[in-house]
Amino acid sequence: MKTLSTNKSHKGTQGVYSHASTSTGTEMTFSVFVPDHEAGETLPVIWFLSGLTCTHANVTEKGEFREICAELGIIFIAPDTSPRGDGVPDDSEGAYDFGLGAGFYVDSTEPPFSTHYQMRSYIETELPALIAAEFPADMSRQSIMGHSMGGHGALTIGLRNPNVFKSISAFSPIVSPLNCPWGEKALSGYIGKDKADWREYDACALIEDGARAKHILIDQGLADNFLAEQLKPELFKNICEAHNQPLTLREHEGYDHSYYFISSFMKSQIMWHSQFLNA
Amino acid sequence: MKTLSTNKSHKGTQGVYSHASTSTGTEMTFSVFVPDHEAGETLPVIWFLSGLTCTHANVTEKGEFREICAELGIIFIAPDTSPRGDGVPDDSEGAYDFGLGAGFYVDSTEPPFSTHYQMRSYIETELPALIAAEFPADMSRQSIMGHSMGGHGALTIGLRNPNVFKSISAFSPIVSPLNCPWGEKALSGYIGKDKADWREYDACALIEDGARAKHILIDQGLADNFLAEQLKPELFKNICEAHNQPLTLREHEGYDHSYYFISSFMKSQIMWHSQFLNA
Repeated sequence: MKTLSTNKSHKGTQGVYSHASTSTGTEMTFSVFVPDHEAGETLPVIWFLSGLTCTHANVTEKGEFREICAELGIIFIAPDTSPRGDGVPDDSEGAYDFGLGAGFYVDSTEPPFSTHYQMRSYIETELPALIAAEFPADMSRQSIMGHSMGGHGALTIGLRNPNVFKSISAFSPIVSPLNCPWGEKALSGYIGKDKADWREYDACALIEDGARAKHILIDQGLADNFLAEQLKPELFKNICEAHNQPLTLREHEGYDHSYYFISSFMKSQIMWHSQFLNA
Repeated sequence: MKTLSTNKSHKGTQGVYSHASTSTGTEMTFSVFVPDHEAGETLPVIWFLSGLTCTHANVTEKGEFREICAELGIIFIAPDTSPRGDGVPDDSEGAYDFGLGAGFYVDSTEPPFSTHYQMRSYIETELPALIAAEFPADMSRQSIMGHSMGGHGALTIGLRNPNVFKSISAFSPIVSPLNCPWGEKALSGYIGKDKADWREYDACALIEDGARAKHILIDQGLADNFLAEQLKPELFKNICEAHNQPLTLREHEGYDHSYYFISSFMKSQIMWHSQFLNA
């Protein structure tokens, strides 16, 4: 692991690191905030998965998470959203919603993407092992959150790994790639035409197929330009109700899809996770 | 005034605006955060002047000021750091510390800069009039703060206008352009060779020459790369002590010159201003 930068912030350390990933076959960059803590102490962990076009940097700079993480003693990890670098294939037209910056947290099975786009294995397996080895993290206390495409990542990774994550939250998530243009494009490109193979990457389908999480929280802005066509939180709400999956869905008048929305409710989401991480 | 964007955040409105400035002869962009408030209510104002290379956007995105401004009911204004656009002269070698992004909050008297680089008049006179006309601002309750070059701006503008600003604060300010390379370059370029003309743009010289402010607070990181050569807070501390100017100088082990430092103490500085704005 290489240290790219560290800055003292809110009494802790905001670092940016990179490492050669075996999952993606590329150098991967991520950020970690470690609060001030006693020597030998380990701290619970929150993962933040970012949305389309983002790197680790967006939430690291604009997320307004450090003050509350410092106060509660929580490590905050922000991975990148796709493999990058020479030889990594991108969208054929360079679109923002597929390829670079748009890995969708899946293990691709379709050439040419399958060689590098292994973000599910990277987030579920490889990066947690690195975090456990290199940071003062208590890996028995993890929660996961994300925004938009990263909300989809948090919901699907969390639902597939209920014994790893104490709680799941999301800002403006894509709740059903099976039922929106972003998801159709991404999963057909990464996973192929058989929609039965998509179900493990669709939070609604996972609930239908029996997956459960103890605690799920979603914050959704009602002035979000992507609400009706891409996000459709009502699909997830209805499926959770039909299958007795507990869900808190908070809808917010006037808020859009931006970090101005995310940062407004970041503290609230982290405090919500904290009750389960410290139970 | 044109509205470039508005986003709901922390229950208020973060806006970005532009207008044709008569001071600079250019279109100038600035941001304003207005907390949620009652119809007809006016709110006190904090000005934030940014540092070298910045626009309004840096503090707007990374400053972590909205939560506390929303809580305390304070309008937060972030102007640009120089005129920009076709015909605005820049540093002859495109350096970061003169010309575009480096207006130093002076009214330039030296051609070719004197035509557009009139940032003192812009910040002291023109923009406040626009804010008073367009926003629910109580202009009888203003404070001013800034970072680095903007800390210099806040100190010098605040000291020259003690009846306008209730309090002045700064992060890692340039306290004496007369005594550092950044200041030497900027003031010789904008104001000319006669150093007597620089004194109204030097916080230390202003104190020596009799200017006073009721309340001044400075936060300085001790791991700041620019501390010894450019910032030299001890010069200001010594002059304030010699001239009975009240000053609170807080030094912070391990913090650098970045927004990771600024955001760590933003809430504390705004709360400090609030006691005077609401006195």
